[in-house]
Amino acid sequence: MTTNTALSDVIMIRLAKPEDCTEIMRLIIELAEFEKLADQVRIDAEVLKRDCFGEKQYFHCFVAEPVNEDSNQLVGYALYFPTYSTWEGVCVHMEDIYVTPAYRGKGLGKRLWQNVTQAALDIGCSRLQLSVLGWNKEAIDLYTRYGCIDMTETEDWHQMRLRRQDMEAFVKK
Amino acid sequence: MTTNTALSDVIMIRLAKPEDCTEIMRLIIELAEFEKLADQVRIDAEVLKRDCFGEKQYFHCFVAEPVNEDSNQLVGYALYFPTYSTWEGVCVHMEDIYVTPAYRGKGLGKRLWQNVTQAALDIGCSRLQLSVLGWNKEAIDLYTRYGCIDMTETEDWHQMRLRRQDMEAFVKK
Repeated sequence: MTTNTALSDVIMIRLAKPEDCTEIMRLIIELAEFEKLADQVRIDAEVLKRDCFGEKQYFHCFVAEPVNEDSNQLVGYALYFPTYSTWEGVCVHMEDIYVTPAYRGKGLGKRLWQNVTQAALDIGCSRLQLSVLGWNKEAIDLYTRYGCIDMTETEDWHQMRLRRQDMEAFVKK
Repeated sequence: MTTNTALSDVIMIRLAKPEDCTEIMRLIIELAEFEKLADQVRIDAEVLKRDCFGEKQYFHCFVAEPVNEDSNQLVGYALYFPTYSTWEGVCVHMEDIYVTPAYRGKGLGKRLWQNVTQAALDIGCSRLQLSVLGWNKEAIDLYTRYGCIDMTETEDWHQMRLRRQDMEAFVKK
């Protein structure tokens, strides 16, 4: 790709199709391996397909696909779902955004994020939220540059989690 | 209510019905007033009803209702929705849990939370998540006592938010 070639000429961003789930799962594991946490990935492409295209659609996903390649390989994805605020109504949470190393630095992550943001605006959302690790200053700087507010920094919001084994114990208490 | 009366004899916990939305909205505003942030509540009972019982169900809600009263007043609610982890699949986020002051200290909040947790287990969730303000030590202690992990404390997760006006600006960049 030369610098004269527009990104949109070589990479298409589109909504995921059922047959993309194997590739999306490969990228999910690639991201987890980068974070050295691949052993925590407990779902597979079949679960992903059921949860996005089955009876109940738990999430939506945009994918980035090279236009002129026959390999069907995807090079990035952004996965999101609606949430709800009792003050402002429907919101969107972006759970994952990832671009494979060879395709970074070309604005592809920004375009994926813009697609999610436009989809959120289209359903009348009042907020787009995401979670980021506090040590990942590069990501926080990027999100802040495009208008994000760090709610943990400004309002001291903490995320609490009850894991499945603790849920099972709690309902019996 | 005497101390000899079981809580379940006087308060029924059940899933919300469309006709509860006016009462749920009253409690949402009561909670926001307690936090001195009632001016930030931008939705009303009609929006709540559409978003819970309309074409697309964005959330679910348990309500606490006194059994032997004719007033139809609700005394608590817990509002939640499914989310998604690319590592563990379907999860649940509990957005609000609230008990009106006169009914506190009787274990009603715990029962509302247990109902949400059971509903989450029933759809195969691997995690229940919620957000809490860091200064609210009483709430954090309670959640921790029942098995919650503070993910902000242990793994430094931060919540980022893009508000609607910043979403509109970002998609044009």
